[in-house]
Amino acid sequence: MKIIAAKKILKANEQLAEANRAAFNAAGVLVVNMVGSPGSGKTTLLEALVAALRGRMRIAVIEGDIAGSIDAERMEAIGVPVVQINTEGACHLDATMIAAASRGLELAAADCLVIENVGNLVCTAGFDLGEHVRLVLLSVTEGDDKLVKYPAIFRGSHALVITKCDLLAHVNFRVERVAADMRRLAPDAPVFQVSAARNEGVSTLADWLIQRRP
Amino acid sequence: MKIIAAKKILKANEQLAEANRAAFNAAGVLVVNMVGSPGSGKTTLLEALVAALRGRMRIAVIEGDIAGSIDAERMEAIGVPVVQINTEGACHLDATMIAAASRGLELAAADCLVIENVGNLVCTAGFDLGEHVRLVLLSVTEGDDKLVKYPAIFRGSHALVITKCDLLAHVNFRVERVAADMRRLAPDAPVFQVSAARNEGVSTLADWLIQRRP
Repeated sequence: MKIIAAKKILKANEQLAEANRAAFNAAGVLVVNMVGSPGSGKTTLLEALVAALRGRMRIAVIEGDIAGSIDAERMEAIGVPVVQINTEGACHLDATMIAAASRGLELAAADCLVIENVGNLVCTAGFDLGEHVRLVLLSVTEGDDKLVKYPAIFRGSHALVITKCDLLAHVNFRVERVAADMRRLAPDAPVFQVSAARNEGVSTLADWLIQRRP
Repeated sequence: MKIIAAKKILKANEQLAEANRAAFNAAGVLVVNMVGSPGSGKTTLLEALVAALRGRMRIAVIEGDIAGSIDAERMEAIGVPVVQINTEGACHLDATMIAAASRGLELAAADCLVIENVGNLVCTAGFDLGEHVRLVLLSVTEGDDKLVKYPAIFRGSHALVITKCDLLAHVNFRVERVAADMRRLAPDAPVFQVSAARNEGVSTLADWLIQRRP
């Protein structure tokens, strides 16, 4: 019985995600669901992307966190319209939360809505939010075995961003191993290497995102 | 109705966790539940602890992963008895899994059982496995804001291990900020700083664990 309930929840989420996507399409807004471990560099990459896209795409942001508003404050500091979701313990965002949060944003004034999901390489994998692009981040300090250990989230993503590449010299991380694992799990997904700290690789990723606009 | 079901699951887990703990006490085995983000350095710290405790404590290990047996193979390579749990998608271990897995180990031949949980800073927080010590890891590359963003798991832990301290010079991470946040969330929990790569701080943690034996 519990399994049936879980399936029902997922089914309801899928229907609401489709409704979200239809609304985003109607508004002409590209929606990106950014996922990755805690500390994989989601917010820092987002700051770098906002700078790289300035004048080309107007960004709005939904921040998902268990608690607090640290990341939303970072977005406000760089002039980005932002809504903070506090999940109060829940381990992922779902389509209901995004439907509610996106009503708090002026979508007509945005070209791209980036949703920064809760830091979680497991539970975020099962919940479509109505996005067009799911971007999964993996920092080089997390190790190069993560695609083998957490396959679902990589399999369901449209691009992989390897972050913190400025630290490659200090850790054991084989980029080619990760790229090969990603080809196996998601053959069509490009793999980007970036260092937000050094602003390297960010413009390539920004160019790719611009091409995804619906 | 869904919330009630979730509470029932947690209640059942708590009862089984107590039964596990009674069995571990009877066997005189210290049980450690090691939690942290994916890539926080759990397996590497465990390898260093096994070396530091050699001749003083006999270690057995339960490895929890969504998929694969990479970590269990690393334990076997250093001669540690190990059982691998594959959760097949589930985002945390629970007391039922530990009851089953511990039957696959010869507890009488161990002084300490270390359970390496699924890499997850959220969902692992809610599930007592019957351990004596919950050890939460935070690597310096994850950033120093994680206690504010994921308070539950830190609040419920008996010690915090700050890992990858050899990388402190390359990242923005204020140890004193994290220590202050931990004092607020878990006043009695010590904070250890280690670098498994340089084998620094590991023996201090090993000495502390020896004192925890039931």
